[in-house]
Amino acid sequence: MTSTASSRIPQEERTRLMRARLLDATVECLVERGFSGTSTTLVSERAGVSRGAQLHHFPTKNDLVVAAVEHLTEVRGAELAAAARRLPRGDRRTRAVVRMLGDHFSSPVFTAALELWVAARSDPALMAAVEPLEQRVGRETHRLTVELLGADESVPGVRELVQATLDLVRGLGLANTLTDDTRRRGRILDQWARTLDTALDGALHATLQETT
Amino acid sequence: MTSTASSRIPQEERTRLMRARLLDATVECLVERGFSGTSTTLVSERAGVSRGAQLHHFPTKNDLVVAAVEHLTEVRGAELAAAARRLPRGDRRTRAVVRMLGDHFSSPVFTAALELWVAARSDPALMAAVEPLEQRVGRETHRLTVELLGADESVPGVRELVQATLDLVRGLGLANTLTDDTRRRGRILDQWARTLDTALDGALHATLQETT
Repeated sequence: MTSTASSRIPQEERTRLMRARLLDATVECLVERGFSGTSTTLVSERAGVSRGAQLHHFPTKNDLVVAAVEHLTEVRGAELAAAARRLPRGDRRTRAVVRMLGDHFSSPVFTAALELWVAARSDPALMAAVEPLEQRVGRETHRLTVELLGADESVPGVRELVQATLDLVRGLGLANTLTDDTRRRGRILDQWARTLDTALDGALHATLQETT
Repeated sequence: MTSTASSRIPQEERTRLMRARLLDATVECLVERGFSGTSTTLVSERAGVSRGAQLHHFPTKNDLVVAAVEHLTEVRGAELAAAARRLPRGDRRTRAVVRMLGDHFSSPVFTAALELWVAARSDPALMAAVEPLEQRVGRETHRLTVELLGADESVPGVRELVQATLDLVRGLGLANTLTDDTRRRGRILDQWARTLDTALDGALHATLQETT
């Protein structure tokens, strides 16, 4: 039965599914046991993948953890873009945008990425892999945030306000790893949304006055 | 010579100095090698303290790392309070306050604390020690920030703006652990200082209008 069923799935698809199982298991391990508690043995057991197959696709622990965080970042990036399309227009948009970002940075992908960042600090080989990933993710998240807020970065101060918003949600994400910080985060982000709206209007107004 | 010199230092003072050497060495280890790369053996070697004496004062690695971060937090807290007394009054005060906080959260004590927070996520015994320390430090930093900004937390929104400021510098601190982020941080915090001043004035103004 099993061999008949599996032979109906093309090899390429089976490989893709196996890789996805390995990467999902790696993220679960990072979140539950941290970087130092994650091992390739534990991941292959959890994913139900043979050691040989796992080592073929990801020869080292670093290969595995970087690929896992990259994979989950792509999945979550797609989820974020989908959620962004459902955001309201008008008055409540900024609040919805910053709350969505706050949730994104408090999700398991943030926790897994945090484990990687911290481990990379004292592991040059891991740093070499993590730094370009982090820069790419940072640029994409920045671009999406600018688009969602309808912010005009040619106006002085606007770029820094968008960056501040992302550094704020990163800080809130870190706070959330110690204790569930959902309620406090909601209050802070609601106030941030009001402040951001006023500041973005103010920056635009100041620029218009200067040019007229 | 050595025994004559050391006999002039009272026992209590010698113990205090030895503890300080152990705790400083622990913070250095956490910053350079991370939590998993820090061991009691390495710390006692680096501090030049015998294993026996080290184990007498700090029986476990967790005792050592929590005491170390607590010690450095106190030292840096005192430094922060001293720096606060030198801050300018008037127009440039908010900028100076947020820049000082930004530097504080990008210092080695933040990096050492970050190692502890992340390790505590998957170590319940460490979490039990880290959580109350983190709460106490959080309260003290919040109280100091309110005082430095001359913020009135009875005005709606002001408490959240102070919290946002601290979550922002926490996020900037995390960004700084991967790459030196000093210049970007400076630009973001200068903009935030302007925005914060306007927001604090606006919150006060709105409350005054409501009450009259």
